[in-house]
Amino acid sequence: MVYFDAASSVPLHPVARQALVAALDEGWADPARLYREGRRARLLLDAARETAADAVGCRPDELTFTPSGTRAVHTGVAGALAGRRRAGRRLVVSAVEHSAVLHAAEAHAAEGGTVAEVGVDRTGRVDPAAYAAELDGATALACLQSANHEVGTEQPVAEVAEACRAAGVPLLVDAAQSLPWGAVPAGWSLLAASAHKWGGPAGVGLLAVRKGVRFAVRGPADERESGRAAGFENIPAVLAAAASLRAVRAEAAAEGARLRELVDRVRARVPELVADAEVVGDPVRRLPHLVTFSCLYVDGETLLHELDRAGFSVSSGSSCTSSTLTPSHVLRAMGVLSEGNVRVSLPAGTPEEEVDRFLAVLPGLVSGVRERFGAPAGAGTTSGGTTGAGTTGAGAPPFAEAGAAEAAGAAGADSVVVDALGRRCPIPVIELAKVFGDVPVGGTVTVLSDDEAARLDVPAWCEMRGQEYLGERPADRGTAYLVRRTS
Amino acid sequence: MVYFDAASSVPLHPVARQALVAALDEGWADPARLYREGRRARLLLDAARETAADAVGCRPDELTFTPSGTRAVHTGVAGALAGRRRAGRRLVVSAVEHSAVLHAAEAHAAEGGTVAEVGVDRTGRVDPAAYAAELDGATALACLQSANHEVGTEQPVAEVAEACRAAGVPLLVDAAQSLPWGAVPAGWSLLAASAHKWGGPAGVGLLAVRKGVRFAVRGPADERESGRAAGFENIPAVLAAAASLRAVRAEAAAEGARLRELVDRVRARVPELVADAEVVGDPVRRLPHLVTFSCLYVDGETLLHELDRAGFSVSSGSSCTSSTLTPSHVLRAMGVLSEGNVRVSLPAGTPEEEVDRFLAVLPGLVSGVRERFGAPAGAGTTSGGTTGAGTTGAGAPPFAEAGAAEAAGAAGADSVVVDALGRRCPIPVIELAKVFGDVPVGGTVTVLSDDEAARLDVPAWCEMRGQEYLGERPADRGTAYLVRRTS
Repeated sequence: MVYFDAASSVPLHPVARQALVAALDEGWADPARLYREGRRARLLLDAARETAADAVGCRPDELTFTPSGTRAVHTGVAGALAGRRRAGRRLVVSAVEHSAVLHAAEAHAAEGGTVAEVGVDRTGRVDPAAYAAELDGATALACLQSANHEVGTEQPVAEVAEACRAAGVPLLVDAAQSLPWGAVPAGWSLLAASAHKWGGPAGVGLLAVRKGVRFAVRGPADERESGRAAGFENIPAVLAAAASLRAVRAEAAAEGARLRELVDRVRARVPELVADAEVVGDPVRRLPHLVTFSCLYVDGETLLHELDRAGFSVSSGSSCTSSTLTPSHVLRAMGVLSEGNVRVSLPAGTPEEEVDRFLAVLPGLVSGVRERFGAPAGAGTTSGGTTGAGTTGAGAPPFAEAGAAEAAGAAGADSVVVDALGRRCPIPVIELAKVFGDVPVGGTVTVLSDDEAARLDVPAWCEMRGQEYLGERPADRGTAYLVRRTS
Repeated sequence: MVYFDAASSVPLHPVARQALVAALDEGWADPARLYREGRRARLLLDAARETAADAVGCRPDELTFTPSGTRAVHTGVAGALAGRRRAGRRLVVSAVEHSAVLHAAEAHAAEGGTVAEVGVDRTGRVDPAAYAAELDGATALACLQSANHEVGTEQPVAEVAEACRAAGVPLLVDAAQSLPWGAVPAGWSLLAASAHKWGGPAGVGLLAVRKGVRFAVRGPADERESGRAAGFENIPAVLAAAASLRAVRAEAAAEGARLRELVDRVRARVPELVADAEVVGDPVRRLPHLVTFSCLYVDGETLLHELDRAGFSVSSGSSCTSSTLTPSHVLRAMGVLSEGNVRVSLPAGTPEEEVDRFLAVLPGLVSGVRERFGAPAGAGTTSGGTTGAGTTGAGAPPFAEAGAAEAAGAAGADSVVVDALGRRCPIPVIELAKVFGDVPVGGTVTVLSDDEAARLDVPAWCEMRGQEYLGERPADRGTAYLVRRTS
């Protein structure tokens, strides 16, 4: 098995394992107690805090251990908003934050606060000037991730921090994805992170709050962790988390450079090997280990399943892999294709051969899925393919499966309607592609769909194909998406 | 070192350790993912939930793993109150709940809710009828611990649950102390517990919510743990917690009976060995492993320090051992002495010899502390003492240290004022005792004190000494406590 989902969680680092097992015998007592076992536990907790603070770049008394990165974000957002309530009730976030931040923002809105979302470009990056423009006198808090968890794009934290400083607004940085690779640029007011992303155990998050930042703890009082994280301290786990953060940081420069080259290989080869694949995210200003691409005419869940059967564990932002049936909010904010989406995030130590093997099996698997879904002719592996599977897609007859489009669209008509109601991603786009060749240049295709993914994928298909997307309008059922053939 | 503070935390159970270390390799992935590592993690999580639910006596889908027992209580109280908001905003708790419950109640009051506290008798037990009388039509939730964490007294959960059922009020039971020893009697609606109390790792609490109980999650949304515990699941830890709960339960009947006898020995011997010591809590309806006693004229922190130096780790509800300078709210609610308070809670497997050794060293340590504080003549080890240290206290001259009382009280006067302002527990009571013999029967002593412990300890001294406590009134500085000599 090859595990390529480091952005989700990674196995315990050997250093973390060693620290954890050792501390099971030393760190189980209550560090608030005055007897020997308690004092020993307190020493371990203090040591963990110093190590973690050093890696974060803050003072130990600014750092709180929380039960998870999610809790660090929830506590940080709520506490900073409450502490700045007199300044105002406006919260500014980027549109591509982790769901922990967006859920905290929703909770704030539900309590009567206002939330401003700053959009991103097609690489997933916020524009510092656009972000700065949202910081008004009523803004209590701004949130910006250090790097995106789905596409790897680094955010302009230093520039946004400077804008926040100028506006007198504290900035909370969700550093969950980047902290293993290096400290966040200075200027943040609050910082959140999650240990199981860097080989620490589950159950440990970090919340750093700079001295001088107004912060009012919400919820019931508790004397532990400066009142910011209720409940008995998990000392073996925080020790392991701190030890592994230090260990991965020591290897970060060299390992990051090595993984960066492997990711560059994936970024370059996937579009050569797989027709109609789009690599998304910033090619340069990005996390070293993460790459995301999408494949037209592919169901993300099916592709993940095929990759799993072939021994590769990856994740996807496709709607079909989520219980909500909506594509990833990150891909939506970027305006890029969501269907057939695959996120590859390499754990430290990933051998080159595993990446090459992934590139070797991917094209055949994509072709197989496309064939199964009756993808249109022309979709398949391009001539750069290292396997022979590329011919499968290309060899599939255009109407291999009875498409819903047949009823509505007639070959050669100037205006064709594709009825994809009740069909889910990637079918609406497949049906669009199937009839598109039959429409004369200048003609239009209307796709009727009630699948949320179509809102993203029909325009993305136009962008990739160089065709004109004319927009959407409500239909009797679902939504009508209008496309004009320009070439 | 002998560790007698199981009620605070216990070392990891060998079964928990084994499960934890094994699951580090198997349970690190995200159980929401569809690939192999995720599916494996999901299986482990499901297995842990089934094991824990079986021990709790609920359905697996009623059980949520939280990051701590404290979080289980906070989430349970807030969620049940929010779910029953239409019924009313009244919360009923016992006066001796764990601080997690009382802090949740304070948070509720701060949001405009009302809180009713049901008092306890001198054993720390609530009266079911008194509890039932507090359940009115506007009561949204009732909370009652299964057994008290400081004095071990079992609460009448079954009777109170029946009263709650009759009143249509859900009952949340904080089972943190009793769950290792057995399931909570039926009738509860919500139940909270903490794994590190039964040899599970830190970082795991349980929250069970019966089907049909109205529950509305507060705070930001999160899809994990039925939305009731935000953040990445800590699967190795929950597996270890479930495994150790099952293991300690298998030994609970036999080990509970054995520890019960050891505790009975402590309960019987301490008053024989130590003069002016009071064993508190219910002698029969109690946790098997826990006993609490208080010693007149002793500073709790100093006694704990001496016990620690002698190799015994225990805890105390004395004010001098807490940062708030107030005695334990449990002892206050019971109206018993708080000074020189010692809680002994035996971990499973405690050898009989350790208890005997504790009983052998305790009298000498108490005498030494009393001597250092200048305790009055007559305080010391009683004739049952197994050490020769008992003579130390008795041999100390009545005014060995210059007491503040000398300035105010004159021997033989009908009414003596003891100025103990600025002096902390146990000095005010020591000064009272020093002059008391000089006041004729029928005369009074007024103790001026600004130490919160005096409010509890002066009346408790009267109770122990069979003297009449006349009450308190505000003084120019601090409070005046009035005592009449009756014998």
